[in-house]
Amino acid sequence: MTLAKTLPVALAVVALPSLGFAQEADTTPTNGEIGYILNTFMFLVTGFLVFWMAAGFTMLEAGLVRGKNVTMQLTKNMALFSLAAIAYYLVGYNLMYPGDGWTISNILGAFSTTALEPVGLADTETDLTYASVGSDFFFQLMFCAATASIVSGALAERIKLWPFLIFTIILTAFIYPIQASWKWGGGFLNEAGFLDFAGSTVVHSVGGWAALMGAIILGPRIGKYVDGRTIPMPGSNLPLATLGTFILWMGWFGFNGGSQLYMDTAANVADISRIFANTNTAAAGGAVAALILTQLLYKKPDLTMILNGALAGLVSITAEPLTPGLGAATLIGAVGGVIVVFAVPFLDKMKIDDVVGAIPVHLFAGIWGTLAVVLTNPDASFGTQLYSVVVVGIFVSVVSAVVWLILKAVTGIRVDEEAEINGLDMTELGMEAYPEFSKG
Amino acid sequence: MTLAKTLPVALAVVALPSLGFAQEADTTPTNGEIGYILNTFMFLVTGFLVFWMAAGFTMLEAGLVRGKNVTMQLTKNMALFSLAAIAYYLVGYNLMYPGDGWTISNILGAFSTTALEPVGLADTETDLTYASVGSDFFFQLMFCAATASIVSGALAERIKLWPFLIFTIILTAFIYPIQASWKWGGGFLNEAGFLDFAGSTVVHSVGGWAALMGAIILGPRIGKYVDGRTIPMPGSNLPLATLGTFILWMGWFGFNGGSQLYMDTAANVADISRIFANTNTAAAGGAVAALILTQLLYKKPDLTMILNGALAGLVSITAEPLTPGLGAATLIGAVGGVIVVFAVPFLDKMKIDDVVGAIPVHLFAGIWGTLAVVLTNPDASFGTQLYSVVVVGIFVSVVSAVVWLILKAVTGIRVDEEAEINGLDMTELGMEAYPEFSKG
Amino acid sequence: MTLAKTLPVALAVVALPSLGFAQEADTTPTNGEIGYILNTFMFLVTGFLVFWMAAGFTMLEAGLVRGKNVTMQLTKNMALFSLAAIAYYLVGYNLMYPGDGWTISNILGAFSTTALEPVGLADTETDLTYASVGSDFFFQLMFCAATASIVSGALAERIKLWPFLIFTIILTAFIYPIQASWKWGGGFLNEAGFLDFAGSTVVHSVGGWAALMGAIILGPRIGKYVDGRTIPMPGSNLPLATLGTFILWMGWFGFNGGSQLYMDTAANVADISRIFANTNTAAAGGAVAALILTQLLYKKPDLTMILNGALAGLVSITAEPLTPGLGAATLIGAVGGVIVVFAVPFLDKMKIDDVVGAIPVHLFAGIWGTLAVVLTNPDASFGTQLYSVVVVGIFVSVVSAVVWLILKAVTGIRVDEEAEINGLDMTELGMEAYPEFSKG
Repeated sequence: MTLAKTLPVALAVVALPSLGFAQEADTTPTNGEIGYILNTFMFLVTGFLVFWMAAGFTMLEAGLVRGKNVTMQLTKNMALFSLAAIAYYLVGYNLMYPGDGWTISNILGAFSTTALEPVGLADTETDLTYASVGSDFFFQLMFCAATASIVSGALAERIKLWPFLIFTIILTAFIYPIQASWKWGGGFLNEAGFLDFAGSTVVHSVGGWAALMGAIILGPRIGKYVDGRTIPMPGSNLPLATLGTFILWMGWFGFNGGSQLYMDTAANVADISRIFANTNTAAAGGAVAALILTQLLYKKPDLTMILNGALAGLVSITAEPLTPGLGAATLIGAVGGVIVVFAVPFLDKMKIDDVVGAIPVHLFAGIWGTLAVVLTNPDASFGTQLYSVVVVGIFVSVVSAVVWLILKAVTGIRVDEEAEINGLDMTELGMEAYPEFSKG
Repeated sequence: MTLAKTLPVALAVVALPSLGFAQEADTTPTNGEIGYILNTFMFLVTGFLVFWMAAGFTMLEAGLVRGKNVTMQLTKNMALFSLAAIAYYLVGYNLMYPGDGWTISNILGAFSTTALEPVGLADTETDLTYASVGSDFFFQLMFCAATASIVSGALAERIKLWPFLIFTIILTAFIYPIQASWKWGGGFLNEAGFLDFAGSTVVHSVGGWAALMGAIILGPRIGKYVDGRTIPMPGSNLPLATLGTFILWMGWFGFNGGSQLYMDTAANVADISRIFANTNTAAAGGAVAALILTQLLYKKPDLTMILNGALAGLVSITAEPLTPGLGAATLIGAVGGVIVVFAVPFLDKMKIDDVVGAIPVHLFAGIWGTLAVVLTNPDASFGTQLYSVVVVGIFVSVVSAVVWLILKAVTGIRVDEEAEINGLDMTELGMEAYPEFSKG
Repeated sequence: MTLAKTLPVALAVVALPSLGFAQEADTTPTNGEIGYILNTFMFLVTGFLVFWMAAGFTMLEAGLVRGKNVTMQLTKNMALFSLAAIAYYLVGYNLMYPGDGWTISNILGAFSTTALEPVGLADTETDLTYASVGSDFFFQLMFCAATASIVSGALAERIKLWPFLIFTIILTAFIYPIQASWKWGGGFLNEAGFLDFAGSTVVHSVGGWAALMGAIILGPRIGKYVDGRTIPMPGSNLPLATLGTFILWMGWFGFNGGSQLYMDTAANVADISRIFANTNTAAAGGAVAALILTQLLYKKPDLTMILNGALAGLVSITAEPLTPGLGAATLIGAVGGVIVVFAVPFLDKMKIDDVVGAIPVHLFAGIWGTLAVVLTNPDASFGTQLYSVVVVGIFVSVVSAVVWLILKAVTGIRVDEEAEINGLDMTELGMEAYPEFSKG
């Protein structure tokens, strides 16, 4: 062939896609942008699912407290989420991601408010290998708020509103972000090889430890433990509690799925699919385990145990929702359900009064889930997992206890006896949740 | 021009995109992967919407039963979804998709647990033309669970918990998957040209037939039919029932939209859009038809009929949500609403006691929707649609009846009279749903 | 190098991607389609979130009315959404987008039902630069329905069902679409430079004006204002109201985020991320402002104010959710919360009875949000914003008032005194929302 004939062909082949590209430039993402778009949109979708968990916690807790404390529980949850959003924006987010090369001095230098990318990414060199800062912030914020939601349930029906909210601000501005930086900010636990995919320890046990310290320092509700017996104080609205559980279950697909962080390749989206399927089956495993176990132990299935069993299954799979197969995920979740059934009466025996079962679900199942990573992920070391559980546990427990004790000394953290007996709704807020439904 | 000058230009044009591509390789899906990513993510999003329907059924049923049976209804729903998830994983999914070339022997050989793709698609030749197995399993599982949810409402307030749950396992492990394989597994109904886009027959009528057989064998609630009159037993919490309806309506976008199966082309995503719009307008049509018809018939709009009218509209459009225009979709849904208004008293006349109206909504409107495919889809044959409705109906009815009768003989399926009168919550579970709201 | 060696290399580099492309043609969207797919799917996801707001309004209103009017409020909400869907399909959508070159005669010529693209985009030249008509219709429909939802809460507990529904039809078929065409249909307000990103004015203030006119013409509930005092009529179910608020908050991510209209570039998806983060923080700001302010003013936080504060924060950021930073967005939302705390008693002083606080939230905060655009968007003119607020306000108020007055004259719009005192549920519908929960 002659040169004259060949060259134009080569150019034409090259030029054609370029022309097509130019023609549709305004709607055609460049190849590099597609991954960025997919990662970012994935964070937004999974992020609104995790946001939805705030409603789930609220409904669960509103359903499990007594009617005289429902308005207070609703108020606490609306307020804690809102304050967490602001605290995480003002302090927490940058503290959690102090930049390259995590050190303590890095953390100390990371105090600043969060800034999003400029509108339209103007005047920026955008790194297209991840996702937008806005979507990442949105997603991470919801995790921080979930930690605070865990605390509110355990301490219900007796804690004062404002001291609780002050604790929430400290938890979401400092305690949660600092320990989260140790793993997710590239800190020393991450360096040590600690594996916690979506936060059985980093999120759930943190809420659980803070709740445990609060419950101990606050003491049990009046009349809960009498003459060595535990007096049942049944929740006022079980459909609400069940709705809350379904909401949390739904939100957990975002919680675990979004923690894959990337959806820009076939491999990543297939992994997210595994995570969705495993998360679902772990919840199912936890619910069924609690169903069967309460039937065997008490001859009657216990709905609140089944609900908490499902949640414990979800917490259990959170540290490693990717590597298990469906069978292993079901069993990991089922063990979470078993833990709840035994831990709830155990805490009562210890006279630690956890109104909604948050400590068994988020702390005990969180520890189990963190350790269970070694069962399916060959990269995990049992020693490192245990070490990390202990390090986070000591840090959060000690700091939480100090904060609770300071609040107790300065403002008091517990409502007075009369308010507790008459209910927080009328005494503290002057507003009943169900003003027309007379008490049986 | 000289050769020396031309060639480098050609090479540069060729090389530039390649270089860019290599540079961003980790975030740039190859072209083939993008379709796979989009299909898979579509399944995950529509799948969590269909999951959400489990909460919708639960709230609808909890709102429509009497207060003394609410905890039981919540327990049944949490348990049935969890058991369905495990049964479909252990048996159902593979039974439903027995592999290429559906035959009965294929089905018999398909007994095995579900395996997802390996993490990161390692060591696999992934077929990029569809979606991940994990996302498909997640999506299909939710359909199977929906079938079981349909049954629980109809049989409420009198069926024993464990026999119901055993039936659920059989339904989700065997009955649903086997008949679903006839259509969606490439079986003989599919070969015959049966069209059922998202399952008016394959899902909804199956739940409806199983519920009908159960309702007949179980018998009506005590006091429901007295001296030829039907005694109203109003639902205890209509906001819950309304919330459940909205949840189901929302979930149905996933139910019908995801059944497009692909979102990898402009044509596919435009079709999904049609489906969303048609699904919405069919629900609206069903609600408005029930609103107007109950106004005309009873001089007062009936909220529970409006809720069931919307649901019947959704079931009616499920067999063919794509081909109708908005007007046809509205009318198809409206007919569903009309069916409900007439079918609910008809069932009462037959002394078949369906507590929540599941049989009119899912069975009768399901049949209507399946036959109505011929109105807008020229590929549909009325004879084949009717034949498929009958074949599925006979199979599910006979097998369900046999299972219910065996359960009745072996364990009994109905609580004793005293338990029914006092309510299942205290007698069977020892836990009231609303312990503080006294009965009027 | 020789030519013979060089050329084949150039061709091979060119050919390789082409081959790969051809091989996977059936699952590989062409470059031009990817933007269309992403835009369309974004509308479907954000659209179902906005749909979800219909449930949020319903729960909010059902929780804030008294127990004797709950069934009516549920009925109104199911009916209004369904009728809005049909009215917008039959008339509204085309009226809102009358085609290129908005003129009054264009509007007059735009009366026609909505037609979606054909199945599979068959025989069409699809414009791949935007999204599918079906997804756009689905998304826009939800905005129209939200406008109607706003009205129902303000007029609760005394308006007749059918006149309210007739107003809804007129609002969603004509009033909303016509004024929306002035901005979003490319009309004269858009030409004038009016900025209203997601509809603080176009949606929220429109619902607010229609509600205000209705509330004035309808008059306050019996017993609401006695001897110059405002008698509290507490909502019957605050968990429902809180759930409704969370649902609305969640849906608002779709409301504001989807209003970016495009997700086909990195810049667009980064902007959507900003919008999600800003929307969330504005709601938090509104809730916290109401929390603190009610503590300061009344010594007790007021949950219903906190809920409405969050909603007012959301309305406030709706006119410009993109340009503010997180701090500005928080403050814009906080001002919304402050407005609500002062506007609710102000309306009571004016003896305008707004049962759920819809007018403060949607009208007053909507005006604030529209004007606040000038604080962060340099393209906004205060004069134009104010002018547009006034123009829309006059149009909607006058037309709404005329319609309400005609309805009052022709059918009457208010139930009789006995029905109002005994509750609409039993007198108008014969169905109690909570038949078993006795009144305290």
